[in-house]
Amino acid sequence: MTVQITRLPVANLTTDAFLPFGQVIECEGRVGHSINDASSHRFSDLAQLETDADGRLALSIFRASGQMLPLMLNRLERHPLGSQAFMPLNGQSFLIVVCLASPDQMHFNAASLKVFLSNGRQGINFNRGVWHHPLLSLSDGDFLVADRLGSGNNCDEIDISPWCVAIEL
Amino acid sequence: MTVQITRLPVANLTTDAFLPFGQVIECEGRVGHSINDASSHRFSDLAQLETDADGRLALSIFRASGQMLPLMLNRLERHPLGSQAFMPLNGQSFLIVVCLASPDQMHFNAASLKVFLSNGRQGINFNRGVWHHPLLSLSDGDFLVADRLGSGNNCDEIDISPWCVAIEL
Repeated sequence: MTVQITRLPVANLTTDAFLPFGQVIECEGRVGHSINDASSHRFSDLAQLETDADGRLALSIFRASGQMLPLMLNRLERHPLGSQAFMPLNGQSFLIVVCLASPDQMHFNAASLKVFLSNGRQGINFNRGVWHHPLLSLSDGDFLVADRLGSGNNCDEIDISPWCVAIEL
Repeated sequence: MTVQITRLPVANLTTDAFLPFGQVIECEGRVGHSINDASSHRFSDLAQLETDADGRLALSIFRASGQMLPLMLNRLERHPLGSQAFMPLNGQSFLIVVCLASPDQMHFNAASLKVFLSNGRQGINFNRGVWHHPLLSLSDGDFLVADRLGSGNNCDEIDISPWCVAIEL
């Protein structure tokens, strides 16, 4: 039996390329404005946080273990009730795997699966309901996470192991 | 004429000491729980973000210039419509100056003015309406900021220069 393995190319993370999935959190390429008697420069509204009315938004820290490549992906998840943002706190690079939903919104569109590489100064925010792989840090490090807490099911999962998706750098 | 200068002691930032003003965002001293097939450890709900119904919560980056000590403080501010969180992205230490409101909530209680020092791995979240000094980073660096955006007045300011408050380390 031959197993077909799909190797996904890894793209640099840019605002435009990530637009269908959410926002890139970085100062690069943005103008911002001076605040606090010029002691700080504010790059405002880089990510828009979202929750349903039954939830609330909170900050958490994920302490991530560095993953070895190549990686075989076996699942995706999505949060139907709120957005989810990740910002590296130790300058660590990480991979972001995202996918559009199928037209009926029930499944994912395998052909749209994409992998992005953060340079470690870039965070991301997944829009509500965007299919993504759980956090894939390339070295040990902490991430500040902004997401929705509260009752109700806020995590759908799907097994993608039949697709045999691999990531190599 | 003799000017009376009040020199404020600088306290280490701890969850308990900061409780009247908001939350400390750090893993230290917390248990957390394993997630994502043990590839991450989640320290959840470290800070509770808040906005009024007319606003929304967003992430921004403040690029701060390092401040020289001693510092003379001349104003405090508060955000009546939402919380405001700061997390250092480059491990930089920063000072947090906070103050309780007067019993009528209109002014601040000078006797309660406190200064805390973050070790650079600690962020903070000011509860809605807490009087505080604008960001005082001790070296150049970026901070991830989670706060309320939207219409309406979300910044009260007060001149504290008559108190001649100084900070020294």
